Amino acid sequence: MTTQGQVITCKAAVAWEPNKPLVIEDVQVAPPQAGEVRIKILFTALCHTDAYTWSGKDPEGLFPCILGHEAAGIVESVGEGVTEVLPGDHVIPCYQAECRECKFCKSGKTNLCGKVRTATGVGVMMNDRKSRFSVNGKPIYHFMGTSTFSQYTVAHDVSVAKIDTKAPLDKVCLLGCGVSTGLGAVWNTAKVELGSIVAVFGLGTVGLAVAEGAKAAGASRIIGVDIDSKKFGPAKNFGVTEFVNPNDHDKPIQQVLVDLTDGGVDYSFECIGNVSVMRAALECCHKGWGTSVIVGVAASGQEISTRPFQLVTGRVWKGTAFGGFKSRTQVPWLVEKYMKKEIKVDEYITHNLTLGEINEAFDLLHEGGCLRCVLKVDD
Amino acid sequence: MTTQGQVITCKAAVAWEPNKPLVIEDVQVAPPQAGEVRIKILFTALCHTDAYTWSGKDPEGLFPCILGHEAAGIVESVGEGVTEVLPGDHVIPCYQAECRECKFCKSGKTNLCGKVRTATGVGVMMNDRKSRFSVNGKPIYHFMGTSTFSQYTVAHDVSVAKIDTKAPLDKVCLLGCGVSTGLGAVWNTAKVELGSIVAVFGLGTVGLAVAEGAKAAGASRIIGVDIDSKKFGPAKNFGVTEFVNPNDHDKPIQQVLVDLTDGGVDYSFECIGNVSVMRAALECCHKGWGTSVIVGVAASGQEISTRPFQLVTGRVWKGTAFGGFKSRTQVPWLVEKYMKKEIKVDEYITHNLTLGEINEAFDLLHEGGCLRCVLKVDD
Ligand SMILES: NC(=O)c1ccc[n+]([C@@H]2O[C@H](COP(=O)([O-])OP(=O)(O)OC[C@H]3O[C@@H](n4cnc5c(N)ncnc54)[C@H](O)[C@@H]3O)[C@@H](O)[C@H]2O)c1
Ligand SMILES: NC(=O)c1ccc[n+]([C@@H]2O[C@H](COP(=O)([O-])OP(=O)(O)OC[C@H]3O[C@@H](n4cnc5c(N)ncnc54)[C@H](O)[C@@H]3O)[C@@H](O)[C@H]2O)c1
Ligand SMILES: [Zn+2]
Ligand SMILES: [Zn+2]
Ligand SMILES: [Zn+2]
Ligand SMILES: [Zn+2]
Repeated sequence: MTTQGQVITCKAAVAWEPNKPLVIEDVQVAPPQAGEVRIKILFTALCHTDAYTWSGKDPEGLFPCILGHEAAGIVESVGEGVTEVLPGDHVIPCYQAECRECKFCKSGKTNLCGKVRTATGVGVMMNDRKSRFSVNGKPIYHFMGTSTFSQYTVAHDVSVAKIDTKAPLDKVCLLGCGVSTGLGAVWNTAKVELGSIVAVFGLGTVGLAVAEGAKAAGASRIIGVDIDSKKFGPAKNFGVTEFVNPNDHDKPIQQVLVDLTDGGVDYSFECIGNVSVMRAALECCHKGWGTSVIVGVAASGQEISTRPFQLVTGRVWKGTAFGGFKSRTQVPWLVEKYMKKEIKVDEYITHNLTLGEINEAFDLLHEGGCLRCVLKVDD
Repeated sequence: MTTQGQVITCKAAVAWEPNKPLVIEDVQVAPPQAGEVRIKILFTALCHTDAYTWSGKDPEGLFPCILGHEAAGIVESVGEGVTEVLPGDHVIPCYQAECRECKFCKSGKTNLCGKVRTATGVGVMMNDRKSRFSVNGKPIYHFMGTSTFSQYTVAHDVSVAKIDTKAPLDKVCLLGCGVSTGLGAVWNTAKVELGSIVAVFGLGTVGLAVAEGAKAAGASRIIGVDIDSKKFGPAKNFGVTEFVNPNDHDKPIQQVLVDLTDGGVDYSFECIGNVSVMRAALECCHKGWGTSVIVGVAASGQEISTRPFQLVTGRVWKGTAFGGFKSRTQVPWLVEKYMKKEIKVDEYITHNLTLGEINEAFDLLHEGGCLRCVLKVDD
């Protein structure tokens, strides 16, 4: 097979317009240029960021585009100068790059990387600031530097994490976003210690991974908060020890939690994307030290607010992107942890479909019963 | 002299009503009860919190009261069970208690103490929930557990820091609030490291102490921001390396600072009490790691806000009370540092008056040329 250096024509789900069903098209995928990697995607999951951009509410969303950023695949070919992955390597394409050279990577303080952001932010590749995707000559924008709703995609080499070839790609694709984000929010951003009292707002995939991370960190109480009580049963398996449905209380939820914990929680995590819940998550923290981490992504233009006294009296407000994990370095480590059964992944997969059924998968995303739906791409 | 056990009649400045000139009265000061210390105040400075409560804008302000919380004096007598200070000890009464026994003190994570807060918050002493001050039998409320605008005051023993008897009380009184707060915001709350870029919003006593603390921590650039350009000359002596007056720019001040620092500052400090400046101070921080500390106290009811994306992309929002210093343990240590000339104190004192001139001192507080005015109380 000599696809190397050739344009590949394959199936991809194209979002031609916001809020219109995705269309499976024959897409032309150009060969990787210098510093680029072409990847055969085998499995991809869906995440809310895909749905958000698809909905048209993301002012930075560009159409037509190929969405998708939680996936796993095999390197098909690499461009000039790419040394860290080779054809045949098993990889997870990551929306957070890690170049190990920029001001961010070298700071030792963050997992954000500045290297390719100016290109990935506007749906193109760095090398020529163009897209590698086209349909009948019409360019299709990239998305988050990953575009995994395609049988083949092109990513920057700094965004490709090489993983153990023994890892099941239909499972570890989840480590490309939601599960990693939740675990890292606890381990890297909050640094939850043994015995801590933790509150998790929102018990979707991200919130459950927060609970799992908190359990691993030795939290003594993990209080799950969700408006959908059906989430409580399954959440027990992820470490949640107590449940609160805000709709069962007349008091504001922050007061309910303060009362339940003799003054507030040590750590709270907002895993919904709702700015009033973000405020509640801060305000349910214990005076003097409580730390609240924003994980959820709010709709554009929305703002968080609180009285400054909340911070002056010792609460800390933070946020996290991809859980603070350095993608190329730490995603392989997360895969190893999964292989050693130290972290769950399978348990977040509630549905399996194919790329052709992607519109049904988007519908599922908005249903309470779905955590992650994994699509077989190479069908 | 056997004042011990007796009611002492002395001069004090009483705030009978909000926003009305203080009146120097003959005040009766009852003997200290169990766990209490009666202190002869020799020098007190004025701080904005005094002015704020006096103005009537503080919804928790109680009248009539004796204000004042930045002072130094000598223990006159102690109540039952008080062992850590004795008559004749030189002390700084502290508005942050440190009992070393409560949940807060034992957490190792905060300088806030819960022991006497329920009493000091409502202007009384814990033992009998009454005031020790009266004028012709009419009780006068305490303020912040300190009430230093009086020749004698009564404080809880957990709020009294014993200091070196060689320390000049007319200087080290400043360590009871403003100077300590600024230094501690840098050293304890932000933990500024060598080489950091720091922005200080507001160059009053607190902001200058932040600059001094940042210089001591090895900051490479200390950018002072004030709307009063007259502050810039003196600020150089406290370590400020660059000045920005927001009024000289059309762009929002956060953008000015981001441009000036190739992406933002590592640490920022709001030392004004203005909620829009608090937002600017957060937003001028570098993506990925920039930390903003709120030191200024905003008027009641005001709120801070920002886009959650600011936090999700790695900025951290914090606040500080008394700079995170544990009062009884660390105020004596700050006094030692002053004695060894490791920190400035004298340089913050721009005016010296007497207790009888306290209303003039309040006027001075609102003038640009005044940092701290120290009142001789024992006149
Ligand atoms: N920061 C990052 O790097 C990052 C990465 C991945 C996902 N995210 C974001 O994390 C958030 C959660 O993702 P997910 O996949 O777990 O979503 P999800 O929709 O599966 O889960 C959200 C949960 O919140 C609950 N909920 C909704 N409103 C609520 C309210 N007012 N109070 C309490 N619970 C409420 C829902 O019932 C649901 O169980 C999303 O905003 C997503 O965009 C952020
Ligand atoms: N958190 C704490 O424990 C604590 C302790 C002491 C004081 N404080 C608070 O710290 C704040 C500062 O105290 P201080 O004694 O230094 O006050 P100050 O009034 O002497 O200094 C404030 C400075 O801010 C400047 N300023 C005002 N508006 C500005 C703006 N929009 N932009 C830039 N600069 C502006 C003023 O010109 C002045 O130089 C006050 O709010 C005080 O209540 C807090
Ligand atoms: Zn995602
Ligand atoms: Zn980088
Ligand atoms: Zn003060
Ligand atoms: Zn205490």
